[in-house]
Amino acid sequence: MSILDATFARGPVSAGGPAADPWLVALLEVEGALARAAARVGLVAGTAADEVSRVCADPGGLDLAAVQVRAADAGNPVPPLVRALQDAVGPHAARAVHVGATSQDVMDTAAVLLARRGLQLIEADLATAAEACARLATEHRDDVLMGRTLLQQALPITVGLKAATWLAGLDGVRARLTAVSGSLPVQYGGAVGTLAASSGSGVDLRRELAAELGLAVTDVPWFTVRLPVADVAGVLGAAAGVVATIAVDVVLLAQSEVAEATEVSASRGGSSAMPHKNNPVAAVSARACARRAPGLVATLYAAMEQEHERGAGTWHVEWPTLTELLGTVGSAASWLTECLADLQLDTTRMAAAVAAAGDPQLARALAEALTPSLGAGAAHDAASAAVRTAASEGRALVDVVLERADVDGAALVADSTPDVGEAGAQVDAALAAHVIATQGGRP
Amino acid sequence: MSILDATFARGPVSAGGPAADPWLVALLEVEGALARAAARVGLVAGTAADEVSRVCADPGGLDLAAVQVRAADAGNPVPPLVRALQDAVGPHAARAVHVGATSQDVMDTAAVLLARRGLQLIEADLATAAEACARLATEHRDDVLMGRTLLQQALPITVGLKAATWLAGLDGVRARLTAVSGSLPVQYGGAVGTLAASSGSGVDLRRELAAELGLAVTDVPWFTVRLPVADVAGVLGAAAGVVATIAVDVVLLAQSEVAEATEVSASRGGSSAMPHKNNPVAAVSARACARRAPGLVATLYAAMEQEHERGAGTWHVEWPTLTELLGTVGSAASWLTECLADLQLDTTRMAAAVAAAGDPQLARALAEALTPSLGAGAAHDAASAAVRTAASEGRALVDVVLERADVDGAALVADSTPDVGEAGAQVDAALAAHVIATQGGRP
Amino acid sequence: MSILDATFARGPVSAGGPAADPWLVALLEVEGALARAAARVGLVAGTAADEVSRVCADPGGLDLAAVQVRAADAGNPVPPLVRALQDAVGPHAARAVHVGATSQDVMDTAAVLLARRGLQLIEADLATAAEACARLATEHRDDVLMGRTLLQQALPITVGLKAATWLAGLDGVRARLTAVSGSLPVQYGGAVGTLAASSGSGVDLRRELAAELGLAVTDVPWFTVRLPVADVAGVLGAAAGVVATIAVDVVLLAQSEVAEATEVSASRGGSSAMPHKNNPVAAVSARACARRAPGLVATLYAAMEQEHERGAGTWHVEWPTLTELLGTVGSAASWLTECLADLQLDTTRMAAAVAAAGDPQLARALAEALTPSLGAGAAHDAASAAVRTAASEGRALVDVVLERADVDGAALVADSTPDVGEAGAQVDAALAAHVIATQGGRP
Amino acid sequence: MSILDATFARGPVSAGGPAADPWLVALLEVEGALARAAARVGLVAGTAADEVSRVCADPGGLDLAAVQVRAADAGNPVPPLVRALQDAVGPHAARAVHVGATSQDVMDTAAVLLARRGLQLIEADLATAAEACARLATEHRDDVLMGRTLLQQALPITVGLKAATWLAGLDGVRARLTAVSGSLPVQYGGAVGTLAASSGSGVDLRRELAAELGLAVTDVPWFTVRLPVADVAGVLGAAAGVVATIAVDVVLLAQSEVAEATEVSASRGGSSAMPHKNNPVAAVSARACARRAPGLVATLYAAMEQEHERGAGTWHVEWPTLTELLGTVGSAASWLTECLADLQLDTTRMAAAVAAAGDPQLARALAEALTPSLGAGAAHDAASAAVRTAASEGRALVDVVLERADVDGAALVADSTPDVGEAGAQVDAALAAHVIATQGGRP
Repeated sequence: MSILDATFARGPVSAGGPAADPWLVALLEVEGALARAAARVGLVAGTAADEVSRVCADPGGLDLAAVQVRAADAGNPVPPLVRALQDAVGPHAARAVHVGATSQDVMDTAAVLLARRGLQLIEADLATAAEACARLATEHRDDVLMGRTLLQQALPITVGLKAATWLAGLDGVRARLTAVSGSLPVQYGGAVGTLAASSGSGVDLRRELAAELGLAVTDVPWFTVRLPVADVAGVLGAAAGVVATIAVDVVLLAQSEVAEATEVSASRGGSSAMPHKNNPVAAVSARACARRAPGLVATLYAAMEQEHERGAGTWHVEWPTLTELLGTVGSAASWLTECLADLQLDTTRMAAAVAAAGDPQLARALAEALTPSLGAGAAHDAASAAVRTAASEGRALVDVVLERADVDGAALVADSTPDVGEAGAQVDAALAAHVIATQGGRP
Repeated sequence: MSILDATFARGPVSAGGPAADPWLVALLEVEGALARAAARVGLVAGTAADEVSRVCADPGGLDLAAVQVRAADAGNPVPPLVRALQDAVGPHAARAVHVGATSQDVMDTAAVLLARRGLQLIEADLATAAEACARLATEHRDDVLMGRTLLQQALPITVGLKAATWLAGLDGVRARLTAVSGSLPVQYGGAVGTLAASSGSGVDLRRELAAELGLAVTDVPWFTVRLPVADVAGVLGAAAGVVATIAVDVVLLAQSEVAEATEVSASRGGSSAMPHKNNPVAAVSARACARRAPGLVATLYAAMEQEHERGAGTWHVEWPTLTELLGTVGSAASWLTECLADLQLDTTRMAAAVAAAGDPQLARALAEALTPSLGAGAAHDAASAAVRTAASEGRALVDVVLERADVDGAALVADSTPDVGEAGAQVDAALAAHVIATQGGRP
Repeated sequence: MSILDATFARGPVSAGGPAADPWLVALLEVEGALARAAARVGLVAGTAADEVSRVCADPGGLDLAAVQVRAADAGNPVPPLVRALQDAVGPHAARAVHVGATSQDVMDTAAVLLARRGLQLIEADLATAAEACARLATEHRDDVLMGRTLLQQALPITVGLKAATWLAGLDGVRARLTAVSGSLPVQYGGAVGTLAASSGSGVDLRRELAAELGLAVTDVPWFTVRLPVADVAGVLGAAAGVVATIAVDVVLLAQSEVAEATEVSASRGGSSAMPHKNNPVAAVSARACARRAPGLVATLYAAMEQEHERGAGTWHVEWPTLTELLGTVGSAASWLTECLADLQLDTTRMAAAVAAAGDPQLARALAEALTPSLGAGAAHDAASAAVRTAASEGRALVDVVLERADVDGAALVADSTPDVGEAGAQVDAALAAHVIATQGGRP
Repeated sequence: MSILDATFARGPVSAGGPAADPWLVALLEVEGALARAAARVGLVAGTAADEVSRVCADPGGLDLAAVQVRAADAGNPVPPLVRALQDAVGPHAARAVHVGATSQDVMDTAAVLLARRGLQLIEADLATAAEACARLATEHRDDVLMGRTLLQQALPITVGLKAATWLAGLDGVRARLTAVSGSLPVQYGGAVGTLAASSGSGVDLRRELAAELGLAVTDVPWFTVRLPVADVAGVLGAAAGVVATIAVDVVLLAQSEVAEATEVSASRGGSSAMPHKNNPVAAVSARACARRAPGLVATLYAAMEQEHERGAGTWHVEWPTLTELLGTVGSAASWLTECLADLQLDTTRMAAAVAAAGDPQLARALAEALTPSLGAGAAHDAASAAVRTAASEGRALVDVVLERADVDGAALVADSTPDVGEAGAQVDAALAAHVIATQGGRP
C-alpha cells in the first residue's frame, strides 16, 4: 500500500487491505458458482463441481504467480486463471471449469459482484450519515442560522431544515444505490453470446448461475450494451455529488470567520507548519474523494460505445476505472460518516449571526416606536445609542431593547423575530420519510 | 441558426426552431402555473391568477428586449422576467406574479419541464428505433453472420441475436428514461427554502404547483441537493452510450471491406472530394452526437457540489450544460432512428463470410472423408481442388462439396454448419419482453 | 438569441451576435484564401480567384438557405457551400473554387481560424485582468490580510502577494494562449491527404494557403492526428482553471462574514426575492462559465482517437464542442475582467482580521510584561481588561496597548506585528516579470 | 499487486514494482534536497543537512508504519513523515528537516518529480515508437493501400504517408512532453507563501532547492494557481490521444476482413473460448489505457479552482488522479511500442485492395478502348469477360489487360494507376523533420 493510499483512501475496493486482491476473489467466486450451476443443469458431475467450488473458495494451491505473468499476454486474467484452476483441480474436475463460458462472462460477472459489494458498503456508510443528519434535524429542529445564497447571507433558516435537506439527499441516493445493487445482472453467453458451447443448456445455466450469485438475469448477453455499468456509474456519480455538497457545507461552516461548525476529533487536523489550526480533515477528504468521481463516471459512459460482440479496449477500460470509482466514492462516504459523527454545531453563534442580521431592522423599529414621544431626531439618536450599548457590552440588541420601559419591547422584538416560515413542517416530513425509508429498507 | 447547427443538430432543445426560445417558454409556463396554484390555495384572487396565466401563455406583450438586457445583471433571467410580467398584467394581477417564489424555484422547475420534454422526445425516438430492431430480429431471426470480438472474426451469430441485443439496450434505456421523466420534482421553497414568503401556505402551494405541472413533490427543496439533475444526466449518458454502440456497429458493418450493411438514403452521404462514396452519414452523426454526452454528464455531476442554500456558479453551470446535453442526445436518438430506418442488410454476404470462415474446417472434413477410398495424398489434393474450383467459379465451397457423388456431402456440411447455439431462443425472449414493455409503456 | 444566452454568455463565438454566423464567415474566409493561393501557384487564373475571393468576402448573393438544407445530408456544410459558391461565381471562376481540397481541409482550417480569434480575444481580456491585478499588487503591496488554508485562517499574507499570485497565473496562461494561437496550422491534403487533386502543386499550395491566412504549415496533413485541437483544448482548460481560482477567491472574500472584497457595480447583483443582497455576480458568472470547460476539454481529448484518414463521428464531435468551449472560456474571461474592474477591497477590515488573529498573542505578551510589576494574577486581569476595553470601544487592541504608560507598548506591538516574510520581494519580482511579459508580448 | 494491474498496467508510476512506493521516494528526495539547499544558504549546518540527506536517500530506519497510520489524520503524509525523519536523524540534524516549509511545498515538489520522471519515460517510449514509424515510412514509402474516410474506402494513399502521419503525431507530442518536463517548477513558500519561516532567505532557498532538483523556479508560489499541473495534464491528454489514434488504426487494419496488419507475438493474443484467434492485444491494451486519460485530465483541470492559499480538497484530489494518469498514459505508450515492434504489414493485400478498387475504372477503360474495333456491345462483353477471367484465375485484372494484343494495355493501366499525388514528398519531409527532432532532442 502506498503512502498515498494511506492518506485518504478507505473505500470498498481497498477495504480488503493489501493481502486480498478483490478482483481475484471475485473471479474465483464466479468460476465456483459457474461450476455449481453447470452441475445443477446436468452438464457436469456434482463431484467435479464440488471440487472446483472448493478450490475457488480456498485458492491457496493455485499458481497465481503464473497467472500474473500470463494475464497481460491474454489481454485479461481469465485465460491463465482457468488454466491454473484446471491444473489445480485435476483432470476429472477440470471438465467442470469454465463450462461454456468466455473470459468476458467471468470478468463482467466478477465486476458486478465487486460493484454490488461496493454499492452496499457505500449505502451502509450513507445510512450512518443519514442517521447523523436525522439526529441533527431532530435536536436542532428550530435552531436558527443564516441561510446563504451565492455565499451571501440571505435570510434565516433552521439547522433542522439544513440537516433535513442533507438527509433527503442521502436517503434519496441510498434508495438509488439499493435499486441498482439489487438489479445487477449476471453475464453468461459464451464466446459470442449464442451459448453455443453450453450444450443446449445455456439459458438454463445462466439462470442457475444468477441464482447461485443472487444476481438478476437478462434475455440476451450485455457484452457490448453496457447498461449495468452505466447504472453503477450513474449512481456512484450521484452519491459523490451528495457527499460533496454536504462536505462543502461543513467546510464553509467551519471557516474561521463563520465558525458555526467544527470537526472535533482527538487526532486529526494538524498542520506541518501551523500547529494552531484545526482543519476539518474529514470534510476536506470527503470532498477530495468525491471530486474524483465525475471524470471516472465520464470514462465509463464514454466506454459504452463497444464494438460488435466484444469491445476492442472499450471494454477493458472499465476495469481500473470501476475499481477507482468504487474506491473513491467509498472513501468519500466513509469520510462523510466520520465528519458528521464528529460535527459540533455552535448554535449560539448561529443565532447571534441571525440576530446581527436582524439588528438594522430592529433598530429602525425602535426609532419609529420612539418618534411619537421623542420626535424623529431624538428617537434616531436613542436607537443609535441602543446599538452602541449592545456592542460595547457584548450583548444582543434584542436584550437591550427588551429592558427599555419607554417602548413595548416585546412587540418590537416579536416583529423582528426571524421568520423561518414552514421550516419545521418540512423537517418533520423529511424525518417521517426517513423513518419509513429506513424501516422499508431494513425490515 | 448557425450553419453548424444545421449540419447535425436535431435534438429536443433545438427542435423548437430559431423562433421559439424553449427556456423562455418554460419559465413562463412555470410562472403561469404558480399563479394558478397560488389562487387554488387562496393566496391570490382567481381573476388575477387568470390574467397572469393568460399573459404567460401568450407573452407577445412582454418587453422581452428589456429582459434580455437585464438578465446578465441579475445573474439569471427571472428577476427581469418577473418585472416584465408584473408590468404587463397591471397592478391588480401583479400581486399574483411569482408568489412566495425565488428565482431558483422558477429556473429549476423550468429546467425540469425542459428535461421532461426532452426525455420524452428521446424515448419516443428510441421507441421507433426499438421497433426497427424488433423488425430486424424477427425477419432475420436465424440469418447468420460472423460474431466479432476485439474486431476479429470469432464464431457465427445471427442477425436476430445482434438486433435483439440492440433491442434489449434500447428497451432498457427507454424504461430508465420513462422512470426519470415521470419522477422529476417541482422546485418551490422561496428565498432560502423556508417558504417564509408563502404566508403559511407554502407546502400546500408547492403541492398544487406540482399538480398543475404534473410533477412530483419533495418534502424539502432540492436547491443544492441535485439528485433530479443527476438522474437526468445519468439517463442521458446511458442513452447516448446505447445509441453510440449501435451506431458504431453500423459504421463497422458498413465498412467497404465488410459491406454487410448499408444506409440507403436518397439524399445523404456525398463527399465533396469523392463522389463515388456512400458514407453512413446517419450512423456517423449519431455517433458524433452521442460522443458529446459523457463530458457534459461529468459537468453536471461535478456541479452537484453546491454551496449552502444556493450555489455560487455551481448552479448556473447546469443551464447551458443541460441544454446542450438534451440537444445532443436528442440529436443522436433522431439520427439513430433514421439510420435504422434506412438500414439495408446484405444477408447473402453475411452468410458467405460465415461460410468462408468455415471453409478450412469443411475442406479438412472432405479430405478425411475421401482418405479411405483415395489415400491420404490424393484425398488432400482433391480437397484442395474443390477449394480452387469454388474460388474460380465464385461459388461457395459448400455447394461444390454437395455436388460430389463420392462422399456424403450433406453429412459433411451438416457437421460444419455454423452452430449458433441458443441464439433463437434468446431472440424470442427479447422480442417477448419488447412486446410487454411496449404494451406496458403505452396502454 | 435565447434568454439563457443573454444571461451569462459573452464569449468569442457569441461575440458576433445573432446576425453573424462565425462558422460560415470562417469557412468562406478559407475558401477565399484557397482560391488566391491556387492562383499564386498557377493552378487557376488570377481573375477567377479574385471573383471567388470577392464573393467569399461579401457572400450576400449565396443561396445559404439551400446550404442549410443540404448540410446535414452531406454530414458537413462544406459540400453544399462549395456548390453554392460555384453557382454564385459563374462557370469561369467556378474552377477556382475548392481547388484540390476536401471538406475537412476547409472545416479544420476554419476551426483553426475561429480558435485563433477566440484565443486572441481571451488573451486580450486576461491582459486587462492582469493589469487590474498588477494595479492591486502595486497599490496594496504591503497591506496585510489573513492567509487561509483549507478555508481556515492560517497566518498573515499581503494583498500584494495575493494579487501577484493571481497575476502570475494570468500572465502564465496568457503566454500559453499566445504560443498556441501563434502555432496553429493550416489543413490542406485533399481527399485522403496525398494532395492527388492538386496537380503536383499541393505542397506549394498548402504553404501559400498558410501564408494567406497567417497560419503555420505541417509536413503532412493532421486529419486524424489532432495535436492542434489538443493544444487549443489544453490551453482553454488551463485558462478556465486560472479564471476559476481567482473567481472563487473573490466569491469567498465577498462572503458576508468575511466582507473583505465587494463587487461594486451600478446595475448588477439583485435578487428576485431578497432586495438587500449584493451578489458578486461577475465572479459567480466567471466561475460558472469556467466550470463548463473541463468536461468539454475531455470531449476533445477523447475525440483524438480518429480512424484512418478521417474519423467517423470522432471528427464531427469537435465542432460544437470547440464552439462551446471557446464561448464559455471567453465568457469566463470577460466576466473576470468585469469582476476585477469592479472589485473594492476593504483593507481596514483585512487588517482588523489580522490583528484579531494576533490579539491572543498580544494579550499574552502584555500579561507577561506586567507580571514583574503587578504579579501574575493582577497582570492577567489587566490584560483581560485591555481586551474588554478594546471590544467595548470598538478599537484595536494594539491601540489600547500603545496608550499604556506602564509597559513599552511599541515593543510589544512590534513583537506581535504580522510577519509577512519575503512577501514584498516576491511581489516585486512578479510585477517586474509582468512588465517584461507585457512589453514583450506587445511591442 | 492486483491481478488486474498485472493485466495491462505497465506505466511509470507502477514501474517501480510493488516494493517501492514512488510517492515516498519522491517526498524523501524533496526533503533531502531541502536540507542541502538550506545548508547552501546558511540556514542550517552542513553536517546536519548531510545527515538528513543521507537518511532520505536510505530511509530504512524510518518508522514508516507510524507514518502510514498518521497520514490520514493530518490530511497528507508530510507531517508524520517529517516527524519520523526528525526522530531518525537525531536532535542535532532535526533542525535541518523541513526548513521553512509547509506540507504543500513537499507534496507539490514531489508530484513534480514524479510527473517529470513519468513524462520522460513516456517520451522515451514514444521515441521508440517514432523510430518504428520512421522505419515503416522509409521501407514502405511508396507501397499503396486504400485511404479510408468515415471507415469507407476512399482513394489510395501510401504506407509511407500513413506511417509519416503517425510519426508526425509522435514527434509532435514528444516535443510537447520534453517542453513540459523541462519547465516544471519547484514549490517552496512556507505556510501561506510569504516565506516567513525562512529567516529572510526564502527566495534564495527556493532557488537553491530548484537547482538541487533541476527544476524551474517561480516568482511566487503556485499553491492555488495550478498551471504546472495543467501543463502535465494537457500533455498527457495529448499523448494519450496520439497513442489512441495509432492504436485504433492498427486495430482496424488487423480486422479479419481487412487483414492488412497483424501483431506477431510469440505469446500474446489467445482467447479463453476461441483458440484460433490472434487478437491485436498490444493495440487493444494501448487503446484501453489511453481511453482512461480524458476523464482523469478533466478531473485535474476541474481541480484548478483552488481556494485562497491552499485548496480544501481541490488540492488533494490531484494526487491519486495524477498517479493514475501517469500510470495509464505510461502503460499506453509502452503497449504502443510493443504493438509497433510486432507489427507486420501485408503490402500485397494492401495493393490488391487498391487494385480491386480501381478495377471498375480499368474495365470501363478497356470497354471504351475496344469499342472502335468491336462495337459497343461486343466491347462491353469483352471487358466483362476479362473481369471474369481475372476472378476465376485468381489474378489481377491489370495482368489480364496487359496480356491483350488488341489494346494498348500499358496505356490503359497507366491511366488507372493509383495516383498518390505528393505522398512521397510529404513522407520525405516528415522523415527529415524527424531526424532533426531526434538529433536536436538528443545531442
